[in-house]
Amino acid sequence: MVEIRKPIAVSEAVRRALADVEPLGAEKVALSESDGRVLAEDVRADHDEPPFDRSPYDGFALRAEDTAGSGPAELKVIEEIAAGDVGRKRIGAAEAARIMTGAPIPEGADAVVMMEQVEEAKRGDGEPYILVPDTYRAGDNISRQGEDTAKGTVQVERGTPVTPGVKAVLATFGYAEVEVARRPVVGIFATGTELLDVDEEIVAGKIRNSNAYTLVSQVHQTGAKARYYGILKDDFDLCYEAVRNALEEVDVLVTTGGASVGDYDYLQEIFRKLDADICFNKVAMRPGSVTTVAKWQGKTLFALSGNPAACFVGFELFTRPVLKTMLGAARPYLKKTEAVLGRDFPKANPFTRFTRAKVDFQAGKLHAKPIGLDKSNAVTPLAHANALIVLPGGTEGYERDSIVNVLLLNGEDTQWTVN
Amino acid sequence: MVEIRKPIAVSEAVRRALADVEPLGAEKVALSESDGRVLAEDVRADHDEPPFDRSPYDGFALRAEDTAGSGPAELKVIEEIAAGDVGRKRIGAAEAARIMTGAPIPEGADAVVMMEQVEEAKRGDGEPYILVPDTYRAGDNISRQGEDTAKGTVQVERGTPVTPGVKAVLATFGYAEVEVARRPVVGIFATGTELLDVDEEIVAGKIRNSNAYTLVSQVHQTGAKARYYGILKDDFDLCYEAVRNALEEVDVLVTTGGASVGDYDYLQEIFRKLDADICFNKVAMRPGSVTTVAKWQGKTLFALSGNPAACFVGFELFTRPVLKTMLGAARPYLKKTEAVLGRDFPKANPFTRFTRAKVDFQAGKLHAKPIGLDKSNAVTPLAHANALIVLPGGTEGYERDSIVNVLLLNGEDTQWTVN
Repeated sequence: MVEIRKPIAVSEAVRRALADVEPLGAEKVALSESDGRVLAEDVRADHDEPPFDRSPYDGFALRAEDTAGSGPAELKVIEEIAAGDVGRKRIGAAEAARIMTGAPIPEGADAVVMMEQVEEAKRGDGEPYILVPDTYRAGDNISRQGEDTAKGTVQVERGTPVTPGVKAVLATFGYAEVEVARRPVVGIFATGTELLDVDEEIVAGKIRNSNAYTLVSQVHQTGAKARYYGILKDDFDLCYEAVRNALEEVDVLVTTGGASVGDYDYLQEIFRKLDADICFNKVAMRPGSVTTVAKWQGKTLFALSGNPAACFVGFELFTRPVLKTMLGAARPYLKKTEAVLGRDFPKANPFTRFTRAKVDFQAGKLHAKPIGLDKSNAVTPLAHANALIVLPGGTEGYERDSIVNVLLLNGEDTQWTVN
Repeated sequence: MVEIRKPIAVSEAVRRALADVEPLGAEKVALSESDGRVLAEDVRADHDEPPFDRSPYDGFALRAEDTAGSGPAELKVIEEIAAGDVGRKRIGAAEAARIMTGAPIPEGADAVVMMEQVEEAKRGDGEPYILVPDTYRAGDNISRQGEDTAKGTVQVERGTPVTPGVKAVLATFGYAEVEVARRPVVGIFATGTELLDVDEEIVAGKIRNSNAYTLVSQVHQTGAKARYYGILKDDFDLCYEAVRNALEEVDVLVTTGGASVGDYDYLQEIFRKLDADICFNKVAMRPGSVTTVAKWQGKTLFALSGNPAACFVGFELFTRPVLKTMLGAARPYLKKTEAVLGRDFPKANPFTRFTRAKVDFQAGKLHAKPIGLDKSNAVTPLAHANALIVLPGGTEGYERDSIVNVLLLNGEDTQWTVN
C-alpha cells in the first residue's frame, strides 16, 4: 500500500522541526578545553583594560612641563621600570624613568617619550641622563587605564562559539573556567538490509554504508556528540527495539534509509508505534522529499533518506539548526548569501532544489557552480561541495550568470554574521 | 644597546619561514578518527559506482519490448526484489519483477517502470500482475554500473582535509583506515615577568597571559598538536634551558613576548646561543614588525610579539603555512580575496598593515570593516574579527568603498578554493 504524503514547504518544515527546541543548558569547562564550544554566558571584563596607565612603547616616563623650554631638556634617569615591574620612585623636576612597553607610568610622570626620540648619555659622575629635543604635552604616549575596555562591560555575547580570538578575551579576563552549552548526544542508525560495513567486500545487490559516517562528521561539525549504533536490517521488531532503547540514551535521533515510498518504510511506523508526533513526512524539495521529523518526549527524531545527497541535505537543513539551537548558538542556520550561477541549470522542477555546489570568490564576488548534477546517488560530489545552491521550484530552469541563493557548508555559520 | 634590525617584505618573510619545510609523513587512522585530518593518499574507487545495474526507483523491472504493443501491457509479477536482495528468476516474456530502489536489475529485464506509472492487480487465481500503459525503451530507468564512477579512478586528492563529504567517499570505497598526514607537535611558551596566569588576580604592573591560550587554539585550528610549556620569567639561563629542553620534544616552537626592541630581547639571544639560523628578525608590517623566525636542526622556531594582535597576525601569516605544509595541505595559506572597505582608514604607514576586520556578504559581495583600529593592545577585537584587511604601506590612507585584499580567518582555507 503506497501512502499518499502531503509535501510541505521547506521553511515550514524547518519551523516545525525547531518547534519547542531549546538550549540544553550549561556546564563549566576549563579554558583549555573550550575550543569550539558555544558560550553559555556573556563574557565580561573583570578589570579595566589597560588595567593601569601604562607605556605603549619602550621609552622614558617624564613630566611634560620639563620639555616645554627652549632647547633639549636634560633629564636625570632615576630608575628603570621593566615590564611586570612598578616604579618605586616619584618622578620629580628634571627627572625621568626608563620604562619598558606595558610597564605602569610611575608617580609624578605624565608623558612618555619613545626611546628613539632621545639621546642617552652619562654625566661625569656616572649618572645616566637623557636629552629630549622635542616638546610633549601631558598625556602623550600614555595608554590610559580603561581606555580600551571598562570593567564589567560585556566583551563577547553568549551564543558565540569559542574561536582563538574569543579565547584571548576569556584568558585576559580571568575565565580559568567558562560556562559553555552542554553538548546534545545524537544517536545515529543506518537502516537497510542492502548495507555493507566499510570493511566488507562489495557483493551483488549490496552497497557500503556511507551515510552513517557522514552523519557522525556532520554532528561533530555542529559541536554535538555522535553515538553511532550501527546498521539495522529490515526487520520491524528489531528496528523498533533498537530505536526504543537508543532513545533512553540520546537527546536526538537520526536515521538514514528505510524511509522510501515503497513497501519498507519502517521508520514512520516505528515513530507511530512510539506514539511520537509526526511533524511532517514529506517536504517540497529535491533531494530529500521523503524526510520525516517527529517529536517524542521532548526529543526530536529525524528519519532521513538513504540517498547520500538527500541524507546530507536533510541533515544540514533540519538537523543542524535543531542541534545548534540546543547548543545555544545565536545563529543556528547555514550562512545564506547570494552568488552568481556558474552554469545553466536547465531542469525545471516543481520542488525547490538544493544542489551541491562549489563556490569561490572572483574579485570578491561569490560564484557557485553546481557539481554532480546528474548523479544524485553518487557520493563523490559531496567531497567537493562547499555550498548548496537553492533553486526555487517552478516551470523553468535557470541560466548561467543568474543571481541565486546559496547556503555555505562546513561550519561557515560560526564565522560570518547573518544579515 | 638597541640593535638595528633590517625589515624585510612580508612575502619574503613567508618564503624564508617556509624554506625547506616539508610534509611530516603519513600515518594510518581509523575512518571514524579521521575528521579534520589531511589526506596523505589519493582516494580511489575500489569498485564501479553504481557497483551493478540497479533501479533508481521503487517500481517494476521488465522487458521494454513487452510494452511496445498497442494498449496497456499486462505483465505477470514473478518475484519481488528488495533492496539488498538479488533476483532469483529470469524475466521472461510478459513478466516483471517488483523491484525496490537500489536493487539490482534481474536477468532478462532491460527497463524499469516507476511504481506510480502502473496499475497493480491480482488475477482470479491470485497471481499478481501489472498493467503498464506507456511504452519504454531498453535502458529506461536503469542506473548503469560505473555510470557515476569507474573503478580505480581518483575521487579525492591527497592534501584535502577530511570533511563530512570526504568521509562519505572514504566509506563508500572501503577505507576502513585512511592514510593521513602526521600532526606536528608545536611547543608554546609565553615569556615575560609581567604575565599572570588566567586564574591570578590582576596586580599593578602585571597583565594576564592570553596569547598562549590563543596560540594553542590557533595551532588546533591548523590540525597540529599544541604543547603548552607555561610562562617563562625574564631570566636568560632559565629561558635557554626551557627552550633547549622543549626542542627535544617538539617539531615546531612558538614563543610570544620577550622580543621587544628594548633591553629584554631574550628570544633572539637564545636562538643565537642555539646556533640557529635566523631567517629574519624584522618584517615590514604592522602589527608584528618585531618577529623572529629561525631554523634549528630542521625545526622552525617562531619568536612572536607579546602584543596580542601582533602575536595573532604573526601566527596566521608565518606559523600557519609552515604547519599546514607539514600537514601536507595543498593550500597552506589563509584564503585571500577582495572586499569593499567598510570605512575610511586615514592612517598612512610605510609598513603593510594587517587590520583585524569583520567581513560579511552584502548581495554576494564581500564587505570588510576594520575593528579595534585604535586599540592595538586590546584583545576584544580579536574575538570579533573574521578576517584581516591587507593595506599595503604608503604615504596615503584608504577611503571607504575602496577595493582591498582580505585574508579570511578561522580555517576558511579548508573550505574555499584558492584562485
